[in-house]
Order: sequence, then structure tokens, then C-alpha cells
Amino acid sequence: MVEEEFVEILLVEDNPNDVELTLRAFKKHNLSNKVHVVNDGEAALDFIFCTGAYRNRDFQKPPKIILLDLKLPKIGGKEVLQRIKSDERTKIIPVVVMTSSQEEKDVFESYRLGVNSFVIKPVNFEKFVNTVAELGLYWMVINNPPKG
Amino acid sequence: MVEEEFVEILLVEDNPNDVELTLRAFKKHNLSNKVHVVNDGEAALDFIFCTGAYRNRDFQKPPKIILLDLKLPKIGGKEVLQRIKSDERTKIIPVVVMTSSQEEKDVFESYRLGVNSFVIKPVNFEKFVNTVAELGLYWMVINNPPKG
Repeated sequence: MVEEEFVEILLVEDNPNDVELTLRAFKKHNLSNKVHVVNDGEAALDFIFCTGAYRNRDFQKPPKIILLDLKLPKIGGKEVLQRIKSDERTKIIPVVVMTSSQEEKDVFESYRLGVNSFVIKPVNFEKFVNTVAELGLYWMVINNPPKG
Repeated sequence: MVEEEFVEILLVEDNPNDVELTLRAFKKHNLSNKVHVVNDGEAALDFIFCTGAYRNRDFQKPPKIILLDLKLPKIGGKEVLQRIKSDERTKIIPVVVMTSSQEEKDVFESYRLGVNSFVIKPVNFEKFVNTVAELGLYWMVINNPPKG
């Protein structure tokens, strides 16, 4: 967890096991000190829109990638996605949904709302870590994010 | 090049060298027999919207990923992107811009139009092949595409 101005990956995840596994996968690729974790949809929106506890964040420094779970306390992942992608100021930020849901409705709706990528969390521990590592590398190294 | 119904990757690229390198990178990862190549923006739109030479394609079988160059003959990449992402039927198809442009205007506009990912083609031969391979694997293996 670092000062908000250096955040490159915003991880929105309420399951502590998934948070731990994700951070472990990032650590293996030296991505771990650029991650900020929030545990519900409300905190995610506060972070992204620089409100509430994050009112002092700089709007011009968005994360390079937002990893978004769908089942979240307070405000659900789809509403978070919809709010990000329907605002001209934030729609350019890449968002990857990371979920255990395989429901076609969730997949279709996420793409319709403008998600950049939809990744299903593998149940198997090793596969989970590998998937998260590949995902982190793709969005931090291969993809070219917009400047804030 | 295969029958259109089996196409998983649509490569929109007019530079024959880049086409060859891309196919070579895919071949290394056994992705090469699922690729269809078109060389200009008009053919890309015909393929995606099942018109012209592709009027017999099945609209319900979109590619899993569209790799789109920006500088294209006939119709430019940004217009192709805009047409895909402003149509409810096709906006769910993942599109990755692959370009040698590093201009921030191109990056920003592509994200604003709804591109899923923006990748800058490395000039170095080996890096180009590696980048394309990682890109192919991410979108064919890690990402979960919408059903058509």
C-alpha cells in the first residue's frame, strides 16, 4: 500500500484470500508496491472520483488499471463499472472485471457497459496466481494506458 | 486463413511485414490457424458487419478479438473503431489497437472511442514478436470474450 499518487493498480476486492493471492502474484513480478486495495464499491468510487476519504487525491493521476470484482459490499461492481464508463473524465481508464462468476449475463453486461477485459478467477490456487500474474504484466507492460 | 466461421482473431493490418511477423508470433503459440487478415478498414467493416464480400458470414459469430492498426487504406482505424463501438450489436467485441503511433492524441482518442487495449508495436524485431505473442495469449487464453 503506497501513497495514492504512486498507485498504478487499483484492486477492488472484498475477499481477503483473493486479495492476498493477488498481491502475492504481483509481488513475484515486482508489481506489489504500486497496488492500492479497496474492499467495497463505495471506496472504489471515492478513490476514482477523488471524493470522501480520497478527496485529496489528484484526479489527473488515475491508476493504469482497475481490477474490479463484481460481488462487492455497499455498491456492486457493475454499478462501479457503469459510473466509471459513463463519465467522460474516467471512461478512458482501463477496467478489468475479475470475478468467479461464469454467468453469461455478467459477461455480456460488463462488455455492454464498456469493460476493457473480463477475466474469470480460476478456482485452482496455482492457476489463480498465474492468471493474475499474466494479467498484471499485460496491463502494466504490454498495454499503453492513457495519460491522466 | 480459414473459413470465416472459425475465425477467432481478426487482424486488420496493411503492412505485409507486420502481418508476417504477427502470424509468425501466433504460429509459435498455435494461434495461427484461427486468424483472418484484412488489409484495409473497408474490408474490416465488411467482415464485422457481414456486408460486401462477407455478406454470408454469421453475425452471431464475432471474432474473439480484433487487432486493429490505425493507419489503414480506404477507411482509417479510428473510424473502424468508432463504428464498432457505437453499434450495440458490435460494441461488445474486444478491440486492441496495435500501432506504431506513440502520439498521445491517438491513445486518448482510442480510449475515448472505447478501445479495449492500446498496444504500441515495438520497432525491434524480437520485441515485436514477443509483444504480439503475449497479446495473443492474453486475449485468447486469459480474457473471457462475450458470446456472440
